[in-house]
Amino acid sequence: MVYPKKFDWEKLQSFCSKIFVKAGVSKENADIVAESLIMADLRGVDSHGVVRTAIYLERIEKKMIDPLAVPEIESQDFATALLNGNNNLGAVVGTKAVEIALEKAKDRGAAIVGVKGSNHFGTGAYYALKAMEKNMILLVMSNASQTMPPTGGKRPFIGTNPLAVGVPAGKETPFLLDMATSVVARGKIIVAAQKGIEIPIGWAIDKKGRSTTDPEEALEGAVLPLGGPKGYAISMFIDILSGVLTGAGFGKYVYNMYENWEQPQNVGHLFIALDIERFMPIEVFKNRMDCYIKELKAEPKSEGVDEILIPGELEFRKVEERKQHGIELPKKVVSELDQIGKRYSINLLDAVICEIEEREEMNEC
Amino acid sequence: MVYPKKFDWEKLQSFCSKIFVKAGVSKENADIVAESLIMADLRGVDSHGVVRTAIYLERIEKKMIDPLAVPEIESQDFATALLNGNNNLGAVVGTKAVEIALEKAKDRGAAIVGVKGSNHFGTGAYYALKAMEKNMILLVMSNASQTMPPTGGKRPFIGTNPLAVGVPAGKETPFLLDMATSVVARGKIIVAAQKGIEIPIGWAIDKKGRSTTDPEEALEGAVLPLGGPKGYAISMFIDILSGVLTGAGFGKYVYNMYENWEQPQNVGHLFIALDIERFMPIEVFKNRMDCYIKELKAEPKSEGVDEILIPGELEFRKVEERKQHGIELPKKVVSELDQIGKRYSINLLDAVICEIEEREEMNEC
Ligand SMILES: NC(=O)c1ccc[n+]([C@@H]2O[C@H](COP(=O)([O-])OP(=O)(O)OC[C@H]3O[C@@H](n4cnc5c(N)ncnc54)[C@H](O)[C@@H]3O)[C@@H](O)[C@H]2O)c1
Ligand SMILES: NC(=O)c1ccc[n+]([C@@H]2O[C@H](COP(=O)([O-])OP(=O)(O)OC[C@H]3O[C@@H](n4cnc5c(N)ncnc54)[C@H](O)[C@@H]3O)[C@@H](O)[C@H]2O)c1
Repeated sequence: MVYPKKFDWEKLQSFCSKIFVKAGVSKENADIVAESLIMADLRGVDSHGVVRTAIYLERIEKKMIDPLAVPEIESQDFATALLNGNNNLGAVVGTKAVEIALEKAKDRGAAIVGVKGSNHFGTGAYYALKAMEKNMILLVMSNASQTMPPTGGKRPFIGTNPLAVGVPAGKETPFLLDMATSVVARGKIIVAAQKGIEIPIGWAIDKKGRSTTDPEEALEGAVLPLGGPKGYAISMFIDILSGVLTGAGFGKYVYNMYENWEQPQNVGHLFIALDIERFMPIEVFKNRMDCYIKELKAEPKSEGVDEILIPGELEFRKVEERKQHGIELPKKVVSELDQIGKRYSINLLDAVICEIEEREEMNEC
Repeated sequence: MVYPKKFDWEKLQSFCSKIFVKAGVSKENADIVAESLIMADLRGVDSHGVVRTAIYLERIEKKMIDPLAVPEIESQDFATALLNGNNNLGAVVGTKAVEIALEKAKDRGAAIVGVKGSNHFGTGAYYALKAMEKNMILLVMSNASQTMPPTGGKRPFIGTNPLAVGVPAGKETPFLLDMATSVVARGKIIVAAQKGIEIPIGWAIDKKGRSTTDPEEALEGAVLPLGGPKGYAISMFIDILSGVLTGAGFGKYVYNMYENWEQPQNVGHLFIALDIERFMPIEVFKNRMDCYIKELKAEPKSEGVDEILIPGELEFRKVEERKQHGIELPKKVVSELDQIGKRYSINLLDAVICEIEEREEMNEC
C-alpha cells in the first residue's frame, strides 16, 4: 500500500479508543488508554505511544489483562490509600490512583497513593500533567520488569523504573521531568545496532558484565542505570516504594509484558500529590516559578549550545507542532495498526492527514 | 605537636557539642548539630563531618546564623506543614521539621513538611535514619548554593542538591540512599588536583563550558549533574520543592555559606514521611525487604566485582568499624578543631584514642 504516515491526533486517538472498546474495554477506560498513548506520541515519546497498542491488545486477548476489573481501595487513611488495580490496564489503574491522590491532597494538603495489581502504565508525564492542570505537584513512580543490573551485577535485575514530576508555572513553560532511570532508553541502542554505529562507554554492558561500545553485545547484555550507583539506588527506591511497599511485584516478580504469558505483570506505582496552596498562594508560586525559569534560560551558554532548556520544554513544543501538523508514524507501526483496524473493522485511514509536504519522505502521502 | 589522629566518636561528639554551647547554642541544639556531624564521620562521609564545625561557628559568630531563633510553623494542614527555621542551624531546623513530619505521618499516614529560612543541614542520611528507627520511610531533599550548570550552561546555577531516602529492613541491612545530584562530589576533583591526576570526561567543565579532564580547570569551571539532563532535572525539582515552594531561596538566592557574609543562606528543605503500616503490617514489609535485598545480593557479579552492595551498606559497615576503632581525622581538621578548642577552653585531646595500631601512619599516635 502507498501508506500514509501522518495522522491527525484526535482521529488517531479516536481510532485507538474504538479498538480498545472492541477488545472489551469500557468506552470511558478506552478513552483513557487511547489518550495516554496519543499524549506520548504528541510529546515525541514515540516509544510509549500507539506503538504499544498491539501488546496491550494481545495481553487483553490472552487474558493477561482484565479490562473488566474494577480497581479497589484496599485501605486508606487521611493522607494515604492503597489501590489494587485488580489487573486492569495500567493507564486505567494509574488514572484512578491519581484521582484519589489529587482529591485527598485537595482536602488534606498532601497524599500518597500506592498501587498494586497494575500493568505497564505508559509515560509518567501523562499523570503529572493531570495534576498540573489542577495546580498540584505530583511525583510519579512505577516499577517495571527487569532490564538493568545493580552496580556490579551482570544481568538485569531492576527495571528502568520511571520517575516523573510535574510543576505548574505562570507564563513560562511548566517544569515536567519524566525519565527512565537508565542512562538512555534501550531503544537508542537498538537504533545504533540498526545503523551499525558504536555506542558510548557507559551506556550498557555485555552479557559477561563488561563495559561495551558494541550495540549488538549491549542488546545481549543490559542497559546501565544513569550515573552508576546513584541511578541504581534511585531505581531501587522506586521499586521499593512502588512494589515492596504496595504488595505489587518487585525485582523479578514484575513480569515482562512481552515475554511472560503465564501471569499478570503485577506492576506497582506510587503517586505523591501536593497542594501548592498549602504553602503559598498559587499566583505567588507561579511568579516564583516564572522568575526561576527565566533566570535559568538566561544563563550563559557553553560553546555550540543554542538554548538552555527546562525539563519538558522540548516535549511541550512537540505537542504544539504535532497537534498542528500531525503525528508521523513509522511504516512498521502503521501497518501493525492497520491490521488491527482490519481485524476489528475500524478504518485507520480515517485518521490520516494527507497534506502535501515539501519533505521528500512525505511524497508517498 | 605530635598530633593524634584517631578519636573516640562519643568523646568527639561531646567535644563538638560543648563547643557549640560555648558559641551560644542551647545544650539540646548543640547535641543535635554535634550528632549530625559525627554521624557523617562515622558513616565515612568525611566531607560533611566535624570538618564543618569551623564554618558553622564562624557563621554564628558573624551573626549569619541565629542560634537562639525558634523555628515556627507558619501554616499547616492534616498532612502538610511549612516551617520557618528563622535562620537557626540547619541540623536544628531539619530535625524539628522531621519531628513534625513523622508525627503527622503517624497520625495521618503521610506528611510533607517544607522548610524555609534554614542553613546547610549536613547529610540527608541523618534525617532518613531518624525515620527508619520509627519504621517510617522518609524522603529528604535540600537545596544548596550554586555549584552546577544546567545542561548547556557554563557556570554554576543549581546546587548539588542532595536527595536521601531511608527504608527499614528486617534482618538485612536497611536501604539508605543519600547522594548529591552531581556526578561526583567536588571534593574528589580537589583530591585529583592535589595528586596531579586527570579526572574522567563527564565529571566537570572548564570555565568556558568545555568538557575537561584537567582537575585545575574543572575547579575553575563547574562540576556536572549526574547523568546529564536527567541529573540537572532532578536537582532542579529538588530546588523547586525545597526552595520555590517553601519561600526559601532558590537558584542564586541560596547564598554560599563560605563566601557570602552579607546575609543568611536561606536554604530550603522538603521532607516526605510515610508510615509503612498504612500499606501493610511492618513485619510483612520487612520480610519483603529482606527477600528483595537477599535476592539482589545473590545476583551474579561482573568480572572483578567482589560483592553487590545495597545503597548505604558500605556506610553502615563503616559506622560499626569507626565506633569500634575510632574516627580518623586528617591533620588539617585536627589542628583546626584543636585551635577552636583552645579558643573556647575545651580540650580536644580528651577525645583521642591513643591505641597502638600496626599501620605505619599511626606511629605518630
Ligand atoms: N512505564 C514504564 O515502565 C516506563 C519505563 C521506563 C520509561 N518510561 C517512560 O519512557 C519515557 C522516556 O524516558 P527517557 O528517560 O528516555 O526520556 P528522555 O531521556 O528523553 O528525557 C528525560 C527527561 O530529561 C529532559 N531533558 C532531556 N534533554 C534535556 C535538556 N537538554 N535540557 C533539559 N531537559 C532535558 C526531558 O524533558 C525529560 O524530562 C518517559 O516518558 C518515561 O515515563 C516508562
Ligand atoms: N547539605 C548539602 O547541601 C549537601 C549537598 C550535597 C551533598 N550532601 C551530602 O553529601 C554526601 C555525599 O554525597 P555523594 O553523592 O558524594 O555520596 P556517594 O557518591 O558516596 O554515595 C551516593 C549513594 O550511592 C551509594 N553507593 C555508592 N556506591 C555504591 C555501590 N557500589 N553499590 C550500591 N550503592 C552505592 C551510597 O551508599 C550512597 O547512598 C551525602 O550525605 C549528601 O547528603 C549535602
